[in-house]
Amino acid sequence: NISVGRANHQDSVEYLYASLKQVYQKSFVPLEEYSNFADFFSPIMADNDIDAKPFVLLVGQYSVGKTSFINHLLGDRATGYPGSNVGPEPTTDRFVAIMHGPEERVLPGNAVAVSPSKPFKGLQVFGNAFLQKFECAEMRAEALEAMTLIDTPGVLSGEKQRIGRNYDMPQVCRWFAERSDLILLLFDAHKLDISDEFKTVVESLRGNDDKIRIVLNKSDQVTPQQLMRVYGALMWSLGKVFRTPEVTRVYISSYWNLPYAEPGRMSAELFDKEKADLFRDLRDIPKNAAVRRVNELVKRARTCKVHALVCACLRKMMPAMFGKEKKQKELLDSLEVIFMAVAQEHGISPGDFPDAAVYKEKLIRWAGTGRTLANLPKLNKELIKKLDDCLANDIPPLLRPLSLGPADPELDARS
Amino acid sequence: NISVGRANHQDSVEYLYASLKQVYQKSFVPLEEYSNFADFFSPIMADNDIDAKPFVLLVGQYSVGKTSFINHLLGDRATGYPGSNVGPEPTTDRFVAIMHGPEERVLPGNAVAVSPSKPFKGLQVFGNAFLQKFECAEMRAEALEAMTLIDTPGVLSGEKQRIGRNYDMPQVCRWFAERSDLILLLFDAHKLDISDEFKTVVESLRGNDDKIRIVLNKSDQVTPQQLMRVYGALMWSLGKVFRTPEVTRVYISSYWNLPYAEPGRMSAELFDKEKADLFRDLRDIPKNAAVRRVNELVKRARTCKVHALVCACLRKMMPAMFGKEKKQKELLDSLEVIFMAVAQEHGISPGDFPDAAVYKEKLIRWAGTGRTLANLPKLNKELIKKLDDCLANDIPPLLRPLSLGPADPELDARS
Ligand SMILES: Nc1ncnc2c1ncn2[C@@H]1O[C@H](COP(=O)(O)OP(=O)(O)OP(=O)(O)O)[C@@H](O)[C@H]1O
Ligand SMILES: Nc1ncnc2c1ncn2[C@@H]1O[C@H](COP(=O)(O)OP(=O)(O)OP(=O)(O)O)[C@@H](O)[C@H]1O
Ligand SMILES: [Mg+2]
Ligand SMILES: [Mg+2]
Repeated sequence: NISVGRANHQDSVEYLYASLKQVYQKSFVPLEEYSNFADFFSPIMADNDIDAKPFVLLVGQYSVGKTSFINHLLGDRATGYPGSNVGPEPTTDRFVAIMHGPEERVLPGNAVAVSPSKPFKGLQVFGNAFLQKFECAEMRAEALEAMTLIDTPGVLSGEKQRIGRNYDMPQVCRWFAERSDLILLLFDAHKLDISDEFKTVVESLRGNDDKIRIVLNKSDQVTPQQLMRVYGALMWSLGKVFRTPEVTRVYISSYWNLPYAEPGRMSAELFDKEKADLFRDLRDIPKNAAVRRVNELVKRARTCKVHALVCACLRKMMPAMFGKEKKQKELLDSLEVIFMAVAQEHGISPGDFPDAAVYKEKLIRWAGTGRTLANLPKLNKELIKKLDDCLANDIPPLLRPLSLGPADPELDARS
Repeated sequence: NISVGRANHQDSVEYLYASLKQVYQKSFVPLEEYSNFADFFSPIMADNDIDAKPFVLLVGQYSVGKTSFINHLLGDRATGYPGSNVGPEPTTDRFVAIMHGPEERVLPGNAVAVSPSKPFKGLQVFGNAFLQKFECAEMRAEALEAMTLIDTPGVLSGEKQRIGRNYDMPQVCRWFAERSDLILLLFDAHKLDISDEFKTVVESLRGNDDKIRIVLNKSDQVTPQQLMRVYGALMWSLGKVFRTPEVTRVYISSYWNLPYAEPGRMSAELFDKEKADLFRDLRDIPKNAAVRRVNELVKRARTCKVHALVCACLRKMMPAMFGKEKKQKELLDSLEVIFMAVAQEHGISPGDFPDAAVYKEKLIRWAGTGRTLANLPKLNKELIKKLDDCLANDIPPLLRPLSLGPADPELDARS
């Protein structure tokens, strides 16, 4: 019996998040606040932004078995996740975030989108038309301790899609895709259909190609020879849609709890292995997501440090009394040169600097009418050192339990 | 035990060719000669041009098993086809046409290329450098009664290819591809490799995409799960190389007479079916090739008729005495209009007319310095009627035994 189960690195992952939140508060926030980071880049992060569970997004034509897949992953309860519907006709008519919660309940989209404890505030941009078609299902399930699943309505063909939905489906998919750690594209081996609508949705996932995995569901419904044809046709078409030379992984199996159907029964061993592979890869998501989040935080720290140094430099170059306006214009026009000087002086890679044109706009907006570059914060060596120390000393050991950090010489010596 | 065998339509095919040759001599040749068809399009066809056996071309990286495939198809004789070599290193170092013959022998390329009874005269354009690397192997084998197989040297990687071969491999492949009725691209499931060189060869097959089939050989050397990966990667890459949305058929099996290897043994049934499919499709080649040849002949007849009518029209429009030169220039510049007039008058589809610009060049070349359009042959209603009658009455019944012609009302009445 296959289960996603609780990975044995789950505890390490939870410990990592707890530590990251502490580290962020202690070493990042002071410099971010001091240097007005929020005005230039993004708001101070809430705990929730750091430890939100990784999303797994499921996308596919209607009736390929997305909802059934999720219910299987959650342990095949009789009723499925709260509010779920399964059937041969288009059944799921909304986006559903399936999250861990102490009791079974369904929260409506509008409430979810304003809840500070849920990572869906950004969905408000899609307005009421979308939020009415969004909900959050809460339940207890092992898999949900480590990830949040996103069920989606099936992709419909042209006319139907336009009539039934008054929100921008590809845009919504893109929103979820960007925030997901894994995107599962489901296909039905019994009824393979790569419509133009589906291509539009896949196009909307562009830029997230590395997160995409393919599930060829219901593979037991056809004979091995037919399955080969279907699978070949799928890869042939996908090879054209995805421009990357790397082949996207396809998991060929049947994702529900009924025994394999007769036509494909002789491939049972293959299907079992494929399902085990997928469930193992799902178990690895929290770990991969955690590593990804650390990377993002490190990137954020670098950006913040560069920003603080540039601000200090700009401030220092402003005249004390006269000619501020002229000088400011001059400085704003030579940001690239200033970046190079800062990079040189502090030994920072040019790749850590923001886009000069965008940054210039931000400086202008920040100054507004009441301030000049002379009002930028001056160099605060102490806060920068704090952040540097954190990157050098606090973060690397956090990765060690996931066996991604540097080896611990002490532990090595003991063993 | 699978064998290509003698298809039960082989006799019909042979009868068809015999009849086509007769019909061509009787009804085509008189008009072709009368209208100087050879000067404008292509020479009068020899019997050999009509009934040359269809070619099956095998292409692939070295060591994928092309030569072994052919030997298997020919009935697994101990020594293989005359002159054949099999081995893990690049072995076949030349192009070999394997043809039916009363005794086993190998004919060198230079001799083959000048032999009037062999369909390889065109290869002379590639010169001695190529002809030294070409030979013809003759032997008795059932499969060879219906087709000629073309074994090729394996595609090698860049440097090796250039050093070892002083002829243009892709050009030669294209020559064979154009004359083939089926092109088998072989891949090795155990060592899948789609190199840039191979892409170049595939590119050279462009325009013949409908003839291409893929053979995934040695499929039993890997486990079903590995096979799926390999096959998926193959389709993914091929989908990018071939621009057509239609998926090219892939035959997944092991093409030699040894028992399936352990890793893939559980897929024996699939491999057997796939091999049976391929061998059945090979059996259909003579029939398909025959139909293709009839189509080409019909097209040739149409072209010839149009040509005769246009010539007569041009001739009639030339002045009897003065101003020939000026008029001729006028006519040559308004060929499109003349085509339309001829199409109108004789109820011919505009699609049957040649490209006006190309045709103009040919008229100029034909006239040369000694003739004018007034020398073109005048209308010969009798010969045109003969050709029309042939197309209407002689050709359709020839297709009937291949159950591709119109139903025979007499036969229908009797049954
Ligand atoms: N692994 C499977 N093998 C065979 N049939 C399946 C499998 N999974 C689901 N089905 C059947 O396919 C149909 C569609 O299933 P389901 O509702 O889960 O699909 P869906 O992708 O969520 O569809 P929608 O987009 O309409 O929500 C149902 O009839 C279900 O019983
Ligand atoms: N179906 C098969 N399964 C496993 N091994 C095979 C199979 N067919 C051939 N081989 C082995 O693969 C090797 C290459 O075979 P072969 O010489 O027929 O390939 P080839 O494509 O003709 O190579 P080349 O391009 O060098 O002429 C040989 O060692 C042969 O024994
Ligand atoms: Mg559903
Ligand atoms: Mg060979």
